[in-house]
Amino acid sequence: MSELALRAEKLDAADELAPVRSRFVLDDVVYLDGNSLGALPANVPGRVADVVRREWGELRIRSWEESGWWTAPERIGDTIAPLVGAAPGQIVVGDSTSVNVFKALVGAVRLAGEGRDEILVDATTFPTDGYIAESAARMTGCALRPVTPAEVPDAVSDRTAAVLLNHADYRTGRLHDLPSLTAAVRAAGAVSVWDLCHTAGALPVGLDEHGVDLAVGCTYKYLNGGPGSPAYLYVRRGLQDRFDSPLPGWNSHVEPFGMRPSYEPAAGALRGRVGTPDILSMLALEAALEVWEGVTVAAVRAKSLALTDFFLECVGAYVPEGLVESLTPQAHAERGSQVALRCPNAGGVMKELIRRGVVGDFRHPDVLRFGFTPLYVGFADAERAARVLGEVLEPA
Amino acid sequence: MSELALRAEKLDAADELAPVRSRFVLDDVVYLDGNSLGALPANVPGRVADVVRREWGELRIRSWEESGWWTAPERIGDTIAPLVGAAPGQIVVGDSTSVNVFKALVGAVRLAGEGRDEILVDATTFPTDGYIAESAARMTGCALRPVTPAEVPDAVSDRTAAVLLNHADYRTGRLHDLPSLTAAVRAAGAVSVWDLCHTAGALPVGLDEHGVDLAVGCTYKYLNGGPGSPAYLYVRRGLQDRFDSPLPGWNSHVEPFGMRPSYEPAAGALRGRVGTPDILSMLALEAALEVWEGVTVAAVRAKSLALTDFFLECVGAYVPEGLVESLTPQAHAERGSQVALRCPNAGGVMKELIRRGVVGDFRHPDVLRFGFTPLYVGFADAERAARVLGEVLEPA
Repeated sequence: MSELALRAEKLDAADELAPVRSRFVLDDVVYLDGNSLGALPANVPGRVADVVRREWGELRIRSWEESGWWTAPERIGDTIAPLVGAAPGQIVVGDSTSVNVFKALVGAVRLAGEGRDEILVDATTFPTDGYIAESAARMTGCALRPVTPAEVPDAVSDRTAAVLLNHADYRTGRLHDLPSLTAAVRAAGAVSVWDLCHTAGALPVGLDEHGVDLAVGCTYKYLNGGPGSPAYLYVRRGLQDRFDSPLPGWNSHVEPFGMRPSYEPAAGALRGRVGTPDILSMLALEAALEVWEGVTVAAVRAKSLALTDFFLECVGAYVPEGLVESLTPQAHAERGSQVALRCPNAGGVMKELIRRGVVGDFRHPDVLRFGFTPLYVGFADAERAARVLGEVLEPA
Repeated sequence: MSELALRAEKLDAADELAPVRSRFVLDDVVYLDGNSLGALPANVPGRVADVVRREWGELRIRSWEESGWWTAPERIGDTIAPLVGAAPGQIVVGDSTSVNVFKALVGAVRLAGEGRDEILVDATTFPTDGYIAESAARMTGCALRPVTPAEVPDAVSDRTAAVLLNHADYRTGRLHDLPSLTAAVRAAGAVSVWDLCHTAGALPVGLDEHGVDLAVGCTYKYLNGGPGSPAYLYVRRGLQDRFDSPLPGWNSHVEPFGMRPSYEPAAGALRGRVGTPDILSMLALEAALEVWEGVTVAAVRAKSLALTDFFLECVGAYVPEGLVESLTPQAHAERGSQVALRCPNAGGVMKELIRRGVVGDFRHPDVLRFGFTPLYVGFADAERAARVLGEVLEPA
């Protein structure tokens, strides 16, 4: 056994989160794609079966009340809240991330008020945020200006209505400085909108602490909600009364069953609701969130950094110099929970890694992406992944 | 056994759709709320369990390709298509009805082109359509004008960009004249948007035949997709190239995995997609649609009319004159697949009906609503429901 393999064994033995792995359904594949689709929590199949067979099949329509279906969006929002540093009553679950970006960005422009006619958007964003931002700008009469996150403090001005930023770059894994960027946006009188897709469940976000205005995120990555599980919207409490959604569906009405012809929004987080919630996906997510029982985000973050450090060390040892280049920052303060390696023929290399039981993903044109989900990935996994990568890149 | 009960027995024995009931999980409750939440198809629990345990749990990220997750929205759209009279390639499944109303209505205004600045909306609509129409009007600079469906031919003008109509009234069950109203909208050069929530799966719609421009609908009523199952959007083939969605998420990009910074829409129905589809809810719906194997919508419509006729006859026989008033039109051409009865204390009456095993629903302020879903409701059910209603309204 190599020195690195021995160290991995010791690190796993000392890992306080190691027992959490048994809360998931896993096999002997090294699954480093939890930043795209989280693994299946072991309690989900039973819960989903009960929702289908008993709540839908037997109680049918009664379940909207008796099984708590109607209130699921805000209840599950409150379950996610502590994971992103939010007090209860500010998060509502439902719709896709793209739809929530639209709600948040149009809402942000309206909150900013008259006289501000520009939206700044992260130029390095996951594309859907940029596409939706373009639509939000067009529909609110704003100009859209792409800037890198580092440029935001200089770019934000008294013209700026809203700034849409990613907490972590989906491609490189770079973590952006949420506290200082949020402060810069606020100092200019603009409204901040953060996309937490690549950080919620992986590291502390501190929405309330840092005064973030609005935020959105998906739940199928580090929150393990399942394929296409519903996204969420955070609206800071102080802004809720003025939050004016572009999608004022009946679920956000103050009296949804009053069937009133004119719209009057509900108070609080549920103002972000739109139409009937997708109950099967939503309650699978609720069950998935139970894996966080007794787990702190601080512990997850500590393990994530140790894992990515160790993986990069193993890559350095197993992969000959010059064959890959890390795009992931060395500094912990700038690192999310993934490692991105640039390499020629990355698509073909990832196919071969997967064939050999190491699952990451490929991002066009030349990036190998490895996500580290501390709830179920261990140090031996990191060592094996790097070793197999070395074997693929330099066949014996 | 009463004469009506005997007739019900004979009608059930002669009903060619009677065997379809065994494709659902049902008990001895008379379930007349399938127009709100369809009953559970028997094959859904097994399919959902397989999606969760094998496709998510074992294949994980590979399922996006290997299990056909990625193409589910358009594949399931094509499965719904024949039920609403649409050729393949025009329907895409995803998001809630409210979100699809927004896409359709903003898209319709953009299709109508410059110089048209008014949206007509059904004044008797299910409220969410009206709320969303108000937002669509506000965001496109249009005036919103509520009119009854009967007023549309006179109200539509060369100012009108789009007209949003319900195929059936959610409260009274009245069926509106889709062919002639669509023709009137078209004759004025405006774009028609139909909400099919209360007709798809209950009666022939004929989207292609009647030249409907855009349509939306939910899938959890007569299509039995489960609580909050995804809605769908129909865009007539001739309009697809010009359809300009206000929610241009990455799933509708011509090259979604190209991660390109600028948006370029895909061709065809999938231009209506937005974000990552909610796979659990979506694949439950796909399984649910298998109950239509060998069933024609014409047969469903014939049975639906026979059921509602028979129910109204039984109500006439069992409920003393003057205690209830039917809001449902007598004329078949004006009747959907539900019967709405106005009665004092309707909320209390419905509670008692449910306690006695007859499940309909109550619509504020004074309406008892009974949905007839011909795939699993029989004539004996109709007779029993009317008999129990008589017993509740006039205790012996």
